[in-house]
Amino acid sequence: MNLTLYRGFRSPSLDASVRKLIEDYCRVARGDILHMTTLAGSGHPGGSMSSIEMFMTLFLLARVTPDDPFNEERDRIVVSHGHTSPGVYAALGRLGFFPIDQAIAFFRKAGSPFEGHIERNLPGVEWSTGNLGQGLSAGCGFALAARCFERDFNVYVVMGDGEQQKGQISEARRFAVKYGLTNITALVDYNRLQISGNISEVMPQNIAENFRSDGWKVLEVNGHSVDEIYGALHQATTDDSAPYVVIAHTTMGKGVSFMENEYEYHGKALPEDLFVKALEELGLENKLDHYRQMREKGVCTYVPPKRPEREIKIDTGEPRTYEPDVKTDNRSAFGNALSDMAEINACGRETPIAVFDCDLAGSVKTEKFSRLCPHRFFESGIQEHHTAVAAGALSTTGVLTFFADFGVFGICETYNQHRLNDINEANLKLICTHLGIDVGEDGKTHQCIDYLGLLRNLFGFRVIIPADPNQTDRAVRFVAGRRGNFMVGMGRSKVPVITDEEGKPLFGGDYTFTPGKADLVRDGDRGAIFSYGGMLHRAVKAWEILRDRGIRVKVYNLATPLEVDVDAVREAAGTGLIVTYEDHNVRTGLGNCLADVIATEGIGPVRLIKMGVTEYGGSGKPDELFQDLGLAPEELARTVEEALKGS
Amino acid sequence: MNLTLYRGFRSPSLDASVRKLIEDYCRVARGDILHMTTLAGSGHPGGSMSSIEMFMTLFLLARVTPDDPFNEERDRIVVSHGHTSPGVYAALGRLGFFPIDQAIAFFRKAGSPFEGHIERNLPGVEWSTGNLGQGLSAGCGFALAARCFERDFNVYVVMGDGEQQKGQISEARRFAVKYGLTNITALVDYNRLQISGNISEVMPQNIAENFRSDGWKVLEVNGHSVDEIYGALHQATTDDSAPYVVIAHTTMGKGVSFMENEYEYHGKALPEDLFVKALEELGLENKLDHYRQMREKGVCTYVPPKRPEREIKIDTGEPRTYEPDVKTDNRSAFGNALSDMAEINACGRETPIAVFDCDLAGSVKTEKFSRLCPHRFFESGIQEHHTAVAAGALSTTGVLTFFADFGVFGICETYNQHRLNDINEANLKLICTHLGIDVGEDGKTHQCIDYLGLLRNLFGFRVIIPADPNQTDRAVRFVAGRRGNFMVGMGRSKVPVITDEEGKPLFGGDYTFTPGKADLVRDGDRGAIFSYGGMLHRAVKAWEILRDRGIRVKVYNLATPLEVDVDAVREAAGTGLIVTYEDHNVRTGLGNCLADVIATEGIGPVRLIKMGVTEYGGSGKPDELFQDLGLAPEELARTVEEALKGS
Repeated sequence: MNLTLYRGFRSPSLDASVRKLIEDYCRVARGDILHMTTLAGSGHPGGSMSSIEMFMTLFLLARVTPDDPFNEERDRIVVSHGHTSPGVYAALGRLGFFPIDQAIAFFRKAGSPFEGHIERNLPGVEWSTGNLGQGLSAGCGFALAARCFERDFNVYVVMGDGEQQKGQISEARRFAVKYGLTNITALVDYNRLQISGNISEVMPQNIAENFRSDGWKVLEVNGHSVDEIYGALHQATTDDSAPYVVIAHTTMGKGVSFMENEYEYHGKALPEDLFVKALEELGLENKLDHYRQMREKGVCTYVPPKRPEREIKIDTGEPRTYEPDVKTDNRSAFGNALSDMAEINACGRETPIAVFDCDLAGSVKTEKFSRLCPHRFFESGIQEHHTAVAAGALSTTGVLTFFADFGVFGICETYNQHRLNDINEANLKLICTHLGIDVGEDGKTHQCIDYLGLLRNLFGFRVIIPADPNQTDRAVRFVAGRRGNFMVGMGRSKVPVITDEEGKPLFGGDYTFTPGKADLVRDGDRGAIFSYGGMLHRAVKAWEILRDRGIRVKVYNLATPLEVDVDAVREAAGTGLIVTYEDHNVRTGLGNCLADVIATEGIGPVRLIKMGVTEYGGSGKPDELFQDLGLAPEELARTVEEALKGS
Repeated sequence: MNLTLYRGFRSPSLDASVRKLIEDYCRVARGDILHMTTLAGSGHPGGSMSSIEMFMTLFLLARVTPDDPFNEERDRIVVSHGHTSPGVYAALGRLGFFPIDQAIAFFRKAGSPFEGHIERNLPGVEWSTGNLGQGLSAGCGFALAARCFERDFNVYVVMGDGEQQKGQISEARRFAVKYGLTNITALVDYNRLQISGNISEVMPQNIAENFRSDGWKVLEVNGHSVDEIYGALHQATTDDSAPYVVIAHTTMGKGVSFMENEYEYHGKALPEDLFVKALEELGLENKLDHYRQMREKGVCTYVPPKRPEREIKIDTGEPRTYEPDVKTDNRSAFGNALSDMAEINACGRETPIAVFDCDLAGSVKTEKFSRLCPHRFFESGIQEHHTAVAAGALSTTGVLTFFADFGVFGICETYNQHRLNDINEANLKLICTHLGIDVGEDGKTHQCIDYLGLLRNLFGFRVIIPADPNQTDRAVRFVAGRRGNFMVGMGRSKVPVITDEEGKPLFGGDYTFTPGKADLVRDGDRGAIFSYGGMLHRAVKAWEILRDRGIRVKVYNLATPLEVDVDAVREAAGTGLIVTYEDHNVRTGLGNCLADVIATEGIGPVRLIKMGVTEYGGSGKPDELFQDLGLAPEELARTVEEALKGS
């Protein structure tokens, strides 16, 4: 059968034979869904069966094919309600994206790629989902990729109805309209049931009006009619006046009489007796024993193809050196490095450079970039949840993507979005400013004193907190040239250029940033101070106070506090005293990272004293707050002195 | 002037003399705002000046007075755009809630309560805000308090227009409509400007349609007309058919010609020359020198009154003891303890008991409570951000408030909401289930392996992870009877009752739960294992394997991993070997907590081996996943054995 005519939903209607083909696939897929879930003894059959006509129509007729599933011109299909994995696997498996038998036999089995919630490692799956409400934002990220690469692919986002309750979706809606992302079509599986019952009882919502109020066009169709689904996709794909949402009226558990409209089948598999009955109703062969044998006696042999990663080609340029007479903040150094790269690369020749902002461009210093590359600057408003996901998704497409924000918004507010970015192996460059007590007058709600404590939980996120403008410049260029998720963090205030004892910039000129390497900033033998970021210059001040009192200690800078330089710690331990000094929560900061290394590596004996933030800060000038919190340089000097007296 | 007639906005219109009074206050308040911000050299004058007529009308005529600001019958006024603190302080100060001179002189000065964003420690301020989009949710919490205590007070929530972009507000809107919280009135300061410029350019939004689409009634008024504001508040307060939003069309910087509609004054103070000009325009005396002297020469002498905390009066009942032949999960033990308390206290005689759910009642075992106390069970749908804040706010009013959810939603997704709950010194009992790798088949997006790593950053949150149904029962009753934020966490699976070597339940009968105390579960002298939660029974299994090989080690349970029992660690270190064992991220779990104590307390020498999760888990049965991740009991036994060989 020649499907070319229908690919991309360009023909206004479907031929009867194609419709029949899809319907046949759907009937078989319903059986697959039931096989998978009954075999695994868990999973979500109900929504899989209500979404299946949408899945099958999309995966068959969108411009993505099993023989070339990673083609950069392909349409992107995002399934936001990732718990409908049985439906997704049935559709993709039957259409040849991977062997259906493997998906059925090894669904939810340890070691198999056919996980309980869909994962991006499978061909056909564009985004790992499971925590609801994030799919439309990811879709926006992919839609922006089409714009950045000047391609005309479309993005289809299938969502549940219950998840429409998540506020993040309203953020994504507004973003899509602002940026005219008419290449996005959302589809809502409106089966009216969520885990706890009817959505009109659990949380009443007018989904159509919600979408209309944000400027979307709304179509309502019978979600089990392939013709209606196709017709709506045709209209949505060909009308470029607005993004469309297709509200597909469906029946949970559709196709098996006793499952229909039963909310318990949202997340419950059929027991075997009912499974037998269901297969009979569907007129399908019961192959449970066959698959059970496969599952019990074998392991999943299907290995997904490696997803090709578009190479990042960016000239990161010549680092700037800020001389000691310059007094600037690390934020500005970031902004300068960013705009340097934008200029050298003409906003990205082969690798587009994109920057996301949440109404703080002036403060996070992305304004210059926004003037240089207005078409690559995405002002997302006060919508951090959406922005974190959209930026994460875009970053996976080969666009060098920065998201710059205050720490409390870019990390604390969006931790879970970054957790899923990390699971998706994104390539995000998160720049967080206004970290620590240094944010000062804005007070405790704005003091991000937990960035290390939070990001340390994400296996794939690396963190750099540079000490001065020179190190910031080099760290920013470093992450631009490396794959993976990075957070580069900094405070708000101006900081002096860190120099060696002769007054030469320590991180300027030929200095190369190396993660995991501590820099010995000052030498001594009576003890060692470890610090980083905007506290390092205060540590140097304490060193000077101590020197004037005849006490020489080492001062180390560790710009990657989560990647501890074990050799440096051993060396420092040789002095018998280590003091860590930071404006981070003392429980979860550098001090804790060093403690972990000392205890697990068996380093010592060494006395470890952790100085850090022990309570929520107040509102005032940073130096006053440091004074109040016992974190002034004089206090650090005093602490070292006291410790040496005691020893 | 007798304001009784107008209190609570019961009269349909204002007398001219009252209007004049408010207008006069507003003129003076504008001067206060400018004094504060110019003196501090920072702050947000623009929005303060556009909101001031609303603030003054509300604080003068709502049913809350400076002489009795904590009366339980008072109307609650929540200011969601907390950066308009100068406006709030000017209004409250002029109306006598605290000395205006102190507020002006010490605005944003370290040690003063007049912080950059409003804090709940001040009379008149009901909720500390600053991170946008949370105020309406807090307002819903207060509105529920009126219902729980059968009081008829109203809640007024003033919000910015930029913050309407936050998705959480849409969640709060739906919740308010579902629960008929017509005692809430929202007011939006629609000055059309946010930090980066005009909201129609930064992020276009139809605020009125957004509210209407969720079932709110919308009024639009001139936000600088006291008559119009009052009229709208009268209509909103007296019409009980729906919650109202009053969209107040205002002018940023209103009252000073050269500040009006200038978005830079969102967050910038006037320099002194322009300040002089502004005061002249307003016809007010320039007292900057006076206040500067106060600020520079003195300290803030105003000490806010202690906010009375309503006593929690709950009979926590007799603990249940689950015998060793019972096989149940900790979730059910939580549900039983909760419903026990609901029954004994008749859903709360003096202290109402409330439970919030996000569409997971069946899984988190709050269904029995929902049947016992349907009027105290708040089904919030898939709206976790809103729910975390609403529950947090309600918990401050003297209602014993539980929020039960999966860990990934109740902690990871809502970390920042809990951060602000903590800053607000809430009294929330957060119950998180499905923690750890134990969640199994749902896969990595659902595996909350970072709950300790996250909550450890919150100074006021205490964490308990009970080992079995008996300890769960006692932990739940313990937190019900204690003030403060607690998280009680547990996995999904059934766990055996932990017994002593004679087979008697270790945490049953007379056992009293004591935070910070490790329980010695098994004894030995060759090494020590520390574990907790659903891993403890696996640690005991490893102990049995080792015993059978002739190796005796200690096994400790530490149900409060963030409150380490230092004496127990010292005792354990005496064996020379400590192994921590958990299904939590190994970087941030119990192992890390112990490492911290060992290094900072100088305990040892002792070899510390941390076993935990080192990568995102897969999807499969928990025991299979533990096997894959090297966390099976056999692997723990092997690790101990290897370590002993090496020593």
